[in-house]
Amino acid sequence: MKPILEIADTFGIADKYLELYGRYKGKLDLRLLSDMRDRPDGKLVLVTAMNPTPAGEGKTLTTIGLAQALNAIGVPSIAALREPSLGPCFGMKGGATGGGKAQILPSEDINLHFTGDLHAITSANNLLAAMIDNHIFQGNALQIDPGRILWKRAMDMNDRSLRQIVVGLGDGNGQVHESGFMITSASEVMAVLCLSEDADDLKRRLGRMVVACNMSGEAVTAAQIGAVDAMTVLLKEAIKPNLVQTAEGSPAIVHGGPFANIAHGCSSVIGTKAALKLAKIVVTEAGFGADLGAEKFFNIKCRQAGLTPDAAVLVVTVKALKYNGGVPKAELDKPNPAALEAGLANIRRHLENIGKFGVPVMVAINHYADDPQDEIRLVTEACRRMGVRAELSDVWAKGSEGGLEMARALQDILRGEPSRYAPLYPEELDIRAKIEAIVREIYRGKGIKLSAKAEAKIRELERLGFGRLAVCMAKTPYSFSDQATLLGAPDNFTVQVRDVTLSAGAGFIVAHTGNIVTMPGLPKSPAAERIRLDERGEVDGLL
Amino acid sequence: MKPILEIADTFGIADKYLELYGRYKGKLDLRLLSDMRDRPDGKLVLVTAMNPTPAGEGKTLTTIGLAQALNAIGVPSIAALREPSLGPCFGMKGGATGGGKAQILPSEDINLHFTGDLHAITSANNLLAAMIDNHIFQGNALQIDPGRILWKRAMDMNDRSLRQIVVGLGDGNGQVHESGFMITSASEVMAVLCLSEDADDLKRRLGRMVVACNMSGEAVTAAQIGAVDAMTVLLKEAIKPNLVQTAEGSPAIVHGGPFANIAHGCSSVIGTKAALKLAKIVVTEAGFGADLGAEKFFNIKCRQAGLTPDAAVLVVTVKALKYNGGVPKAELDKPNPAALEAGLANIRRHLENIGKFGVPVMVAINHYADDPQDEIRLVTEACRRMGVRAELSDVWAKGSEGGLEMARALQDILRGEPSRYAPLYPEELDIRAKIEAIVREIYRGKGIKLSAKAEAKIRELERLGFGRLAVCMAKTPYSFSDQATLLGAPDNFTVQVRDVTLSAGAGFIVAHTGNIVTMPGLPKSPAAERIRLDERGEVDGLL
Repeated sequence: MKPILEIADTFGIADKYLELYGRYKGKLDLRLLSDMRDRPDGKLVLVTAMNPTPAGEGKTLTTIGLAQALNAIGVPSIAALREPSLGPCFGMKGGATGGGKAQILPSEDINLHFTGDLHAITSANNLLAAMIDNHIFQGNALQIDPGRILWKRAMDMNDRSLRQIVVGLGDGNGQVHESGFMITSASEVMAVLCLSEDADDLKRRLGRMVVACNMSGEAVTAAQIGAVDAMTVLLKEAIKPNLVQTAEGSPAIVHGGPFANIAHGCSSVIGTKAALKLAKIVVTEAGFGADLGAEKFFNIKCRQAGLTPDAAVLVVTVKALKYNGGVPKAELDKPNPAALEAGLANIRRHLENIGKFGVPVMVAINHYADDPQDEIRLVTEACRRMGVRAELSDVWAKGSEGGLEMARALQDILRGEPSRYAPLYPEELDIRAKIEAIVREIYRGKGIKLSAKAEAKIRELERLGFGRLAVCMAKTPYSFSDQATLLGAPDNFTVQVRDVTLSAGAGFIVAHTGNIVTMPGLPKSPAAERIRLDERGEVDGLL
Repeated sequence: MKPILEIADTFGIADKYLELYGRYKGKLDLRLLSDMRDRPDGKLVLVTAMNPTPAGEGKTLTTIGLAQALNAIGVPSIAALREPSLGPCFGMKGGATGGGKAQILPSEDINLHFTGDLHAITSANNLLAAMIDNHIFQGNALQIDPGRILWKRAMDMNDRSLRQIVVGLGDGNGQVHESGFMITSASEVMAVLCLSEDADDLKRRLGRMVVACNMSGEAVTAAQIGAVDAMTVLLKEAIKPNLVQTAEGSPAIVHGGPFANIAHGCSSVIGTKAALKLAKIVVTEAGFGADLGAEKFFNIKCRQAGLTPDAAVLVVTVKALKYNGGVPKAELDKPNPAALEAGLANIRRHLENIGKFGVPVMVAINHYADDPQDEIRLVTEACRRMGVRAELSDVWAKGSEGGLEMARALQDILRGEPSRYAPLYPEELDIRAKIEAIVREIYRGKGIKLSAKAEAKIRELERLGFGRLAVCMAKTPYSFSDQATLLGAPDNFTVQVRDVTLSAGAGFIVAHTGNIVTMPGLPKSPAAERIRLDERGEVDGLL
């Protein structure tokens, strides 16, 4: 690793803008953004993927490797990534820092406490929760209905026992009511931080968050609780983008990590905008497959932030194609060109969808050592027939060298027809019509079915003036449909919308399909049992 | 503020041992301690106080000011302090970084997330809690009794609603059971971190912590849960002492902040030992008055760590003396020599007590601008009659200049009769006798009364082999007795021991007198409502 000051220096970041967290991590002062206001922006590239499978697609890996490869061919590039949540590392997820020769470093630090952003978000979330309950305890001037406290507590830990709890038991401990914890990345505070333009915007958004209903059924906001300024103080460092480096010493901005189901799953707007001022090409990613990640990146993040994505890269693997063609996980290593052909329907649909946003796209085939050569050829040719360029990416094994073809292909695309990016639906559409637009145009279902509860809540949200907000779909990532087992390119399905909830600070309405778990649990044998410091004091077992 | 690298440099700490957290905060690499192994230790001075009163005594202030003054007269000195808890800053406590011209800086950072130590402790505490519940959920191989889970969750926030909760409700969310949160500084993990000699000792202590009972009534430890290595990983940075500076640019090591009731209330052993290698004089403090703080510092911290305190400074104020002489808070500003005389009984007893540990002592009269001159003289003369030197400390208004007399007096003491420090009771005494020793010798009560529960638990703890552990008293800080309103120097009282609990990792048994709140609540008008970022982006309202 190079000192982070050196990495910053090569991208023209003066020392005064970098606050060090050890030798290898830094935070960028927000004055850097205002001081760079007049610089031209670089190109913005989204790395997204086909529907995820148990085999792993390597989206973060490809994002890092592509940025490394672009730098290797002389194009100053920055990877703009989400920061990992600590909790799941102790469950079974492993880290979220890429792998092999396409990693961000120091990976253990990034996967653990990093620069404390998630802890700060946890604190801000829980200060608000404590102030709501304290408000009720101290007289309840706002007439909050204890049965309709919407705000939950947060913890960056996988702890299923905290999903549904009763608080306030015992004498003098406040109002008894049902509550629960979500994992910190699922907190609206995380989504708000990631969508904010600056500290003022952060404060405004925090203030708009709806935390409860009063006895008359009206919304009570965080601003009314009086928590917003103190929350902003708790978040004053967390809002600054983090600078680290890739395994090849190029810069990466790793900032914010909202859930990709009940939130929008993209790294921070501030981090992305800083990267655009510093680099010729910014490579960023979005959670899950393109049906969720790219859709939200385009319809929520880019629309809100006024960003224009210049190109997209769809990550595929031959294993994931075979899986989507019907092959069970245990048999993915065996050649099976017929299943692969069947699975191509999945990526065809994602490519068409990205086209609907007017964004040029290419395919990156993330290479596994045991992939049959002729299956790779099959994918490449099929993409060519679809009019899309596909390149092999071998960045795990070879770093930038394994991504040179991909980087050159991307450059060609960026030099070609410019992006005609536009969101899928206008803000003016009513909430139901927005959900239908996504389901029909992106998922290709025949329609939606709203539960009675969802229907009533939509009416109420529109009455309260929230009808113009974007829709954030909470859906299984494994299928275009709302049923995890419908692989490939299913159609003729109806999406069941069970509930809708408001994230007024983040600026979207979440449409819940199926049961979305916002607090994971630990598995039978959690990774925590194997994570340790080795003899040299290094972390072992985390990745 | 000077860059922290410069502060480190003046005390001979090479750059390689300092990990920066911004320009003004650093963590000391633990290799520094081993590399300094052969250096002689400096002198260790405890700053303690008379019984605290609502007027505030200024113990942290005096500790910082004394270290500044020692440096000003050419004696390289370090203040070794506890780190503040974030939660109470949003309640009504204000910061814990001194004040006026005797502060540690950057005070806002130190009072907020600082270097993330408390967040790391929270994470380690809650990982263990999640793993216990997950163990039960996944089959309960250890046969843990869900009704006897002793381990609580932690949060660094004042949130009374979390004191007593029910977790695991709902389908698939684990075993339903009662639980609760304590504030992070009350977690045994905090006490363990503060008493550990190094990372190996930390791991051993974490492993010994008793977290539950099994169906046969036997203790289940954190080691049996398999959580210890992962907890050690989470704490690998938190165990490193933090270096900051005083308002006059002298160094301060601020590390660890355990509760002073259910824990021992002293900063970390590692931080104290590092300071002793780096400075001629180390000035440290302990929570609450000398009846709790000094007693635990001598009997728990110094005994466990093999430290020899060379002197003690008892902080008093004329206001606190008058309060202990019966004057209500609202009238403390008025002259009242008679009440002051009566209050002197309080400091007389503390001075005698410190003498019982064989430690030379002096008095520091922390000066308030409106203190009557003749009342100060009264205190000085009374101390002289007791054979103890008393000096005025005006470090809040004047910094080191206001502490020169105090610093010189301390030097005289350190040059005089050497300390004959010894703990008050031998480890071999049984638990009941240890509690009695403290109550008779330090509090001056006529004896103790154990509840039936406490009696039964003592028998059980002795049967399980924990009888040799030290006793950690959880008692009101406001009185020598267990009744907060018995001011001055009460006697003839009996201390009621309601319960005893085991902190096997920390190495003590907590004797609970009265109700000790381990999770504070927010007041009617919490400080959080007034804490904000001002126009320049600076924190306002925190101190």
